[in-house]
Amino acid sequence: MLDTLSAAELTIDDMRAAHERIKPHIRRTPVLSSEYLNAQTGARLFFKCENLQEAGAFKVRGACNAVFGLPDEIAGKGVCTHSSGNHALSLSYAAGRRGIPCNVVMPRTAPQAKKDAVRRFGGTITECEPSTSSREATFAQVQARTGGEFVHPYNDPRVIAGQATCSAEMLEQTGGLDAVIAPIGGGGMVSGTCLTVSNLAPDTAIYAAEPQQADDAYRSFKAGRIIADDAPKTVADGLLVPLKENTWHFVSRNVADIFTASEDEIVAAMKLAWKHLRLVIEPSSAVPLATILNNPEVFRGKRVGVILTGGNVDLDKLPWLAGQGGEG
Amino acid sequence: MLDTLSAAELTIDDMRAAHERIKPHIRRTPVLSSEYLNAQTGARLFFKCENLQEAGAFKVRGACNAVFGLPDEIAGKGVCTHSSGNHALSLSYAAGRRGIPCNVVMPRTAPQAKKDAVRRFGGTITECEPSTSSREATFAQVQARTGGEFVHPYNDPRVIAGQATCSAEMLEQTGGLDAVIAPIGGGGMVSGTCLTVSNLAPDTAIYAAEPQQADDAYRSFKAGRIIADDAPKTVADGLLVPLKENTWHFVSRNVADIFTASEDEIVAAMKLAWKHLRLVIEPSSAVPLATILNNPEVFRGKRVGVILTGGNVDLDKLPWLAGQGGEG
Repeated sequence: MLDTLSAAELTIDDMRAAHERIKPHIRRTPVLSSEYLNAQTGARLFFKCENLQEAGAFKVRGACNAVFGLPDEIAGKGVCTHSSGNHALSLSYAAGRRGIPCNVVMPRTAPQAKKDAVRRFGGTITECEPSTSSREATFAQVQARTGGEFVHPYNDPRVIAGQATCSAEMLEQTGGLDAVIAPIGGGGMVSGTCLTVSNLAPDTAIYAAEPQQADDAYRSFKAGRIIADDAPKTVADGLLVPLKENTWHFVSRNVADIFTASEDEIVAAMKLAWKHLRLVIEPSSAVPLATILNNPEVFRGKRVGVILTGGNVDLDKLPWLAGQGGEG
Repeated sequence: MLDTLSAAELTIDDMRAAHERIKPHIRRTPVLSSEYLNAQTGARLFFKCENLQEAGAFKVRGACNAVFGLPDEIAGKGVCTHSSGNHALSLSYAAGRRGIPCNVVMPRTAPQAKKDAVRRFGGTITECEPSTSSREATFAQVQARTGGEFVHPYNDPRVIAGQATCSAEMLEQTGGLDAVIAPIGGGGMVSGTCLTVSNLAPDTAIYAAEPQQADDAYRSFKAGRIIADDAPKTVADGLLVPLKENTWHFVSRNVADIFTASEDEIVAAMKLAWKHLRLVIEPSSAVPLATILNNPEVFRGKRVGVILTGGNVDLDKLPWLAGQGGEG
């Protein structure tokens, strides 16, 4: 393990170093808007389109920072991780670009589109049950067998520094914001956002958005300590995991509030974004818009940066079409 | 009728004047790419994302040029048109921004998403049968009743000059291309592309892409005269109309070739774009990608600009899902 830094030691220079390291491997994604959604919310919404990364998720930022920061002697054994999907395929993408092996543990219920992408990028999948306990137990076996460097999907400061580059671009592209909001699962994107925004735009409020049916970050935030659920169920398949110490560091210090949305609200917001932004986003990415629609008084009149985290969806199983659940 | 210019009189300065006129009302849409689609085709594809216009289609360019070019005394009576959908909603959008009435004739089979958008932008719809003859007859009644200025969906030089701004942006954004390709229905976008590219990048080849089941432009091109079908049927609902004299002027002079694709190929290319570009595009927009996949020898090794013309789709009726046709 190389990530001897803890979250508390990360500085804005770690974000800047990450940005230089990953620039050849990621896209500076566009920021888009919709007059219709602005009218619906009374806010000015700036959507940062991480779904438009080649791998379809912001997670390529952290994965590339970790993979391209490895010294050759460690990189040679490859990398490994567990992930509900986007970190797995992003780490496979990064490892593929460096030409090193990548082994990932994924829940068997992960969307087929995400499993297919891991394999397309050259990663090897070991499936587990859809619970934190099964995921961690299966991963311990894979790691022992392969000896690869573990790149945790979010509790790794290298990953957090990589995710932090997203809001740095967004602040530049928009010329400043009153608030930013991102989905929260394990808290990697939110932590990176905290690292950047608390340093570069300290007056900008940082919000997180979570499914009601996987609201462990919300309950942790209110209780002042990490509360973890083992196996939550939600259509937002990217937000199933609990906070860990490195993300709790940022969430507990820099987040202004966490809002939640129901399953129906998430699916409705997803369809609204497809219709009016003409972007394919996955359910997890729709949670912030759902909570903005739920809490108009918080956002009305504000310039709000909304991070669209990913767009890896099973196009044959859309959650608003009858008889098709969102869990694959 | 103000469009006393004919296509033969249009110059590149008309495109430049149109661009200045419409800039406050349209987006400079991004150009996106996919390493995956590049690998699949052996080309470097640059997708110009007109689906990301607020109204979801390139047609806002021509519609805004026509509407904002009207003198006040004519604008007061409003505008009217017939359209399979995107010109109707784009003209409604432009008229709404100028605060004048808009009356449109649309086939009853047009996608619900397009009808909804016309009404959201303040336009009034009169439905007709899905044939050129019914469309033109119904329109004559509407025009006589309202007295609005007719803005033809593509045979109007003001409209062609507006559509021409799209490829001007694309040439700037990409730094130059070996070829450009756009879908062809009535030929408005292709004609605008010809006006711009033949003047600003005369070495860039201009291709058009058409559904096999509505291949009247292909047959016209091969025959050297306009051949019109009355009521073709294709999933590409934006490409049902025939060439007219002003678009034939450009198509016959500046287009290098026209390629066609089957219904299955169009739907497969549409799904491929949704999956790898994470963009919601409508079937018509997928025809160029389908023909690039069909004709790899033409495009391999080339820098190719691909115009994604629109993204107005019924999200409840996706053509790749069983039992659901593409015709609404």
